[in-house]
Amino acid sequence: MTEQNRVFAPMLSSWLSKDGDDADVVLSSRVRIARNFEDELFPFYEQRDAVVERVKCVLDDSFLLFKMEELGILDRALLVEKHLISPYLMNESEHGAVFISPTENVSIMTNEEDHLRVQCLEPGLRLFDALENALRMTGQIEQAYPFAFHKEFGYLTSCITNLGTGLRASVMVHLPGLVATKRLKKIAEALRSIGFVIRGIYGEGSRSESNIFQISNQVTLGKTEEDIVSDLTQIMEQVIMQERVSRTSLKQKFHISLEDRVYRAYGVLKNSRVISTQESGEAISELRLGIELGYFEHISRQKINELLIFSQPAFLRKARGQDMDELEEKVIRASVIRDILEEV
Amino acid sequence: MTEQNRVFAPMLSSWLSKDGDDADVVLSSRVRIARNFEDELFPFYEQRDAVVERVKCVLDDSFLLFKMEELGILDRALLVEKHLISPYLMNESEHGAVFISPTENVSIMTNEEDHLRVQCLEPGLRLFDALENALRMTGQIEQAYPFAFHKEFGYLTSCITNLGTGLRASVMVHLPGLVATKRLKKIAEALRSIGFVIRGIYGEGSRSESNIFQISNQVTLGKTEEDIVSDLTQIMEQVIMQERVSRTSLKQKFHISLEDRVYRAYGVLKNSRVISTQESGEAISELRLGIELGYFEHISRQKINELLIFSQPAFLRKARGQDMDELEEKVIRASVIRDILEEV
Repeated sequence: MTEQNRVFAPMLSSWLSKDGDDADVVLSSRVRIARNFEDELFPFYEQRDAVVERVKCVLDDSFLLFKMEELGILDRALLVEKHLISPYLMNESEHGAVFISPTENVSIMTNEEDHLRVQCLEPGLRLFDALENALRMTGQIEQAYPFAFHKEFGYLTSCITNLGTGLRASVMVHLPGLVATKRLKKIAEALRSIGFVIRGIYGEGSRSESNIFQISNQVTLGKTEEDIVSDLTQIMEQVIMQERVSRTSLKQKFHISLEDRVYRAYGVLKNSRVISTQESGEAISELRLGIELGYFEHISRQKINELLIFSQPAFLRKARGQDMDELEEKVIRASVIRDILEEV
Repeated sequence: MTEQNRVFAPMLSSWLSKDGDDADVVLSSRVRIARNFEDELFPFYEQRDAVVERVKCVLDDSFLLFKMEELGILDRALLVEKHLISPYLMNESEHGAVFISPTENVSIMTNEEDHLRVQCLEPGLRLFDALENALRMTGQIEQAYPFAFHKEFGYLTSCITNLGTGLRASVMVHLPGLVATKRLKKIAEALRSIGFVIRGIYGEGSRSESNIFQISNQVTLGKTEEDIVSDLTQIMEQVIMQERVSRTSLKQKFHISLEDRVYRAYGVLKNSRVISTQESGEAISELRLGIELGYFEHISRQKINELLIFSQPAFLRKARGQDMDELEEKVIRASVIRDILEEV
């Protein structure tokens, strides 16, 4: 397999293969920093090649470069499903490109909404690690090519919501307990009032069938990077605690019906021959809850990551090497899910 | 285990352990003959002991006698679930009794609606065997104690619907194909027009969650016993053929969704922790269809019989040796079903 092909192979990103902190609730942490070069216009379509070349000069050779215009729709969709590029880069930016690190924990998008979007991922709740990594990457580039910076506003970005630090810190969390006890709405309101927001798994506007959500900062201006990450980390500790309390209380109050729910979900995943993303998402969420509650000791969290990612539409198509209609997709999804659980 | 206890043990009647003819559609055949002694009044409560004594004299010692008033409600319910007594004998006849043969393929109820209700069961479509057996039993009794007989009307019964032959022939059939292709209603109408009727699994007024039905004659007068059984056998051959055609056509047209349906049902039975009779009945029906269509080669029809009988309320209580509330019943049912499928 060539280096290029590895990214599109039906495999998990290797950074996903270890459990992070608080992995019972937090799937992953992400820090994304937006930057623009001071001597290039932005928006920027004319400067595409210049931007790509600058990044290429700074990064070591281990990073792989993919230009959107050279990728088929399927490969682009796959990168979105792996959270390596944004839906915006996939759909809107024909001049966009992305640099991806060997373990796929760093991706640097060029010519998305800004010249640079540096994104670092970590398993579990490890925002500080992700921040350190992202600042190191942007620092390296900045040393060679200074960024647009305003002494009052901070780093300048093409959208005002990213002005200042250009930082978006987010965590991907599994909150079946808070959903079941109907406490999530209240928490979402509280988060919003202090400048944080909770969304579906693939970002803005996406739903969460799987009880998996992204929590991230909305404010990028007027706080340091460390403050944003520190605040989000503290908030997450609260959310994690509340989710654990909800799970324990569910297990105490509804032990049998909870066991019934999670095993039935397992039964659906083990046996169905036709399954939609929505239904599989719901069932995988239930199974993950079941694992965390100790019902499925033989299944690892790793398997849940595989189920979540490998059952996505582009992954299915890549794995089979063919396009497919809606029914075929559901049939292949069911088959892939059964295979993953069969390995257990 | 004493002989008496054997009947109430959580075991299948031994006649059920072999497959009969056309077992892909027909679970069992039953012939029931109603008779009254000519020298005893009927209705008859005063003559209860006399009726029981007469039968006892004629039968060999291998038959077990159970008097309803001496059985707890649970034991009576169990006999209904095994199809060895009627719901009427369980609920209405405090003076009723039943004689049961060692393999449980013959049961003779006394003081049900008539002095005698002789019932013979066979696996699959074997109405003639059941008839022969039933006529032999009634013949033995008649030789010793003549039955009420009118030369114009035939054998006299307490309800006019049994007058003449006193014969009810019935087959228990699994018709998921005709239900799915919505052809059962039309067949039921056709049957009714020629004096046959289709009902749920536990007789009149009972529903069929499991796509299992009883088809039986309504007319007992003006035809010989052999004619009734011959007519029903011919009708059944038609119904069986139509059911098979429906299944084949379902499998051709909806192969994948059918496979999905039957495997999901299997997943429910293998995994649920709380399950109602209705849901288990539906799922067992789907699983039986799946077996007949070749999807579950490792599961025998025998297992289906066990699932159907052992998941009934009285069986569950007997097996656990305790009464239970509604939730407990559902939990134990799910557990018993999992155990049966685990053995596979």
